[in-house]
Amino acid sequence: MRAARFHAKEDVRIEEVEEPSPGPGQVKLRNAFAGICGSDLHVYYAPEASGLDLTKPHPVTGAMPPQILGHEFSGTVVEVGEGVDRVAVGDDVAVWPVYGCGTCAACRRGMFNACRTIAFHGLNAHGGGMAEYTTVDAAKLHKLPEGVDLRLGALVEPMSVAWHAVAHANVQAGGSALVAGAGPIGIGVWFALRAQGVERVLVSEPSADRRAIIEALGATTVDPVNDDLASAVADLTDGDGVDAAFDAAGVGPSITSGLANLTPGGRLVVVALHERTMDFLPTQLVMSETEIVGVLGYTQDDFDAVIQAMSEGRYDTTGWVQEVDLDDVVDAIRSLRGGNGAKVLVRSGAAA
Amino acid sequence: MRAARFHAKEDVRIEEVEEPSPGPGQVKLRNAFAGICGSDLHVYYAPEASGLDLTKPHPVTGAMPPQILGHEFSGTVVEVGEGVDRVAVGDDVAVWPVYGCGTCAACRRGMFNACRTIAFHGLNAHGGGMAEYTTVDAAKLHKLPEGVDLRLGALVEPMSVAWHAVAHANVQAGGSALVAGAGPIGIGVWFALRAQGVERVLVSEPSADRRAIIEALGATTVDPVNDDLASAVADLTDGDGVDAAFDAAGVGPSITSGLANLTPGGRLVVVALHERTMDFLPTQLVMSETEIVGVLGYTQDDFDAVIQAMSEGRYDTTGWVQEVDLDDVVDAIRSLRGGNGAKVLVRSGAAA
Repeated sequence: MRAARFHAKEDVRIEEVEEPSPGPGQVKLRNAFAGICGSDLHVYYAPEASGLDLTKPHPVTGAMPPQILGHEFSGTVVEVGEGVDRVAVGDDVAVWPVYGCGTCAACRRGMFNACRTIAFHGLNAHGGGMAEYTTVDAAKLHKLPEGVDLRLGALVEPMSVAWHAVAHANVQAGGSALVAGAGPIGIGVWFALRAQGVERVLVSEPSADRRAIIEALGATTVDPVNDDLASAVADLTDGDGVDAAFDAAGVGPSITSGLANLTPGGRLVVVALHERTMDFLPTQLVMSETEIVGVLGYTQDDFDAVIQAMSEGRYDTTGWVQEVDLDDVVDAIRSLRGGNGAKVLVRSGAAA
Repeated sequence: MRAARFHAKEDVRIEEVEEPSPGPGQVKLRNAFAGICGSDLHVYYAPEASGLDLTKPHPVTGAMPPQILGHEFSGTVVEVGEGVDRVAVGDDVAVWPVYGCGTCAACRRGMFNACRTIAFHGLNAHGGGMAEYTTVDAAKLHKLPEGVDLRLGALVEPMSVAWHAVAHANVQAGGSALVAGAGPIGIGVWFALRAQGVERVLVSEPSADRRAIIEALGATTVDPVNDDLASAVADLTDGDGVDAAFDAAGVGPSITSGLANLTPGGRLVVVALHERTMDFLPTQLVMSETEIVGVLGYTQDDFDAVIQAMSEGRYDTTGWVQEVDLDDVVDAIRSLRGGNGAKVLVRSGAAA
C-alpha cells in the first residue's frame, strides 16, 4: 500500500509499504482523511525539538522512523481481529491516537494526555493515517454516527484539543470569552464555546485573512495590533471583562492581554505552545484572583463530546478546511509553514 | 485616646485623637492587639505605590490621611450601637476589615476581596486597630470562642490570607505541598495545610533563621539555594511532584521551581506580591496541565474556618510572634523592613 513516511528532518517520502493485518483486539481501517497538524510541521522541520527520538525505539510503542504520519484521521473498518465486538466491518470511525505508558504520575491519574512518554498513532507508533490502511486497537475507536462524515471524522482530533481547552475554562453557558488566534485550534475553540452555550465570544487575530475566515463562520473579531482590544472586550461584557480567555496563538501578548481582559476570578487557558519565554508579572493574577491553566491534547470523553456536537450540526468546515492528495503532503507542509492558516486534510485511502 | 496615625511617607505619629462613638449597627471595641502587615510597610515607605491616595477621600469610605493604622486586629466589645444584637458587651472579637464598593464586577460576584476600590479598616477607613478604641459595623465581627484568646484573634486576618490560599489550591487531605517562603504567610499556609489534613509539606526558604523558626513548629524545610529542592520534592512524593505549590515569597524562582515540582494537573497558588516581572515560559504549564492561580485577601468564611481551627489548637505562636507597645510601632516597622521575618503584634488598647 502507499504511505507518507517520515524518514528524517525534511525527508518525508510517499512510498510503497506492506499492508498491515489486525492482531487480537485490533481492527484494520481503510483510512479516509488525515489532517496535517502543527506537530507534523515540528516533526518535519525540527524532529529533535519535537521530542521525536530518531535513534531508538519509542519506550511505549517500540516504534522508530521511518514512521507513517497522520494522527488526526478517520477511516472505515474493513477487518476485525480476534475478540473485537465494539465495532463491525463497515463502521466509520475516528481514532483516539494516544498511547500512554500507564505507569507515570499522569497516567495513574487517568491523564494519558499528559503522559511523560506519550506516543501517538501516526507520530511514533506502528502506523498512521497517511496510508491506505492502518491497524489500531479497537479501544481507540470512536464510531461516527449519522450526519458525521469521514471528512468531519478527521477533524475530531483537532476539535477535541479545542474542546478540552474549553472544558478546562470553567465558563458557563451564557458567559463570555476572548479567543486569541484564529488558526484551526482557535476556530475549534470558537465552535466548542458556542456548542457549550457561550455566545458572547470575541476572536483576536492580527491576520486579516484569518479574521475573514472566522468572520465568515459568524465570529466577531478584533485586530489586536491596530484596534482597541480592551474597548472591544468592554463593549462585549459591559466593562466586566470576559469569563474566560484562550491563548491559541502562542505569543506573550496573548497571555498579557488575555489576563488584562479577564473578569475577577476568570481563567486563561493556554492551548498553544510557546517557543519563547515572556515577561510576566505574577501580581497580574493576584489583584483579580485570575488563573492560568495549561491544557494538552484531549481525553476520550472529549472525542465523544465533539462527535456528539458534530452530529448536532455545530461544526462547519466552510472556508478553513482544504484537501490534498497523498502525493502532495510535502507541498502542503511547506505551504502551512509559509503561514497558510487552514486545516489541510490528506485524502489518504478511501478518499483518494 | 492614643493612636498610631499615618500622615505621609515615613511619617507615622503616636498621638492623641478623639475617642469614637458607635452609630446604629456599629459597636465600639476596646482594641487588644494589632499586627503589622507587609501592606503597612508599603504604606509607610511607598504610599503612592501601595494604592493609597493621600490627596482625596477614599471613594468607598470617604477616609483620607491622617489614618489610624491596624487592619489585623482583635478587641473586646465595650458598647453596642442601636440595632446590634449579634454581639454583646464583653465579647472578644476579630474584625473582618474589608469595605467593598458593592457594585464592581468582583463585588457583584461576592468577591469583595478583589473589589476594584477596596478599603480596609486600618488602612483607608475611619479607624483602625492601632488605637485604644475603634468603631466598626457589627457585620464585620467574628466572635472568638473559648480557647481563642485576643492574641490569636489578631492573627485571624493574616492566617485567613493563608487559609484562603490553601482553599484555592484544591489539595485534598492526604495530599502533598511545597511552600516557598517561611515568613508569616508561609507559616500560615503551613498551618492551614496541616489543619486541612495535608501532612506531607516541604517548606523552601533560603534564610537559615526563618527555616529554624518554622522547623521549631514541626516543619520539614529545604534551602532552595544550597540544597537540591527537586530531590527533596521527589523524596516527599515518590517522584510524582507535589499536588500544590505556594509562592509566599514573591520572587520569580518560587514560581519557576514551584511549577517544575508540581504533579500533573497540580496547582501553584501565588499569595505573595511580586515587585518585578519574571521570565516565564507558558509551555511549562501545558506539558503537565498545571495551573497558576492568584489569590488575594480572604472571605468571611475564611475567618470562620481559621477561628474554628484555632479553637481546635491547630495554631501555635511560639517563636514567630512578637509583641511591641504602641509607642514602638515605627521602630517595629523599621525592624521588619530590615528583614526580621516575625509577625509583630502591637499592644494597642486593653493589652497595653
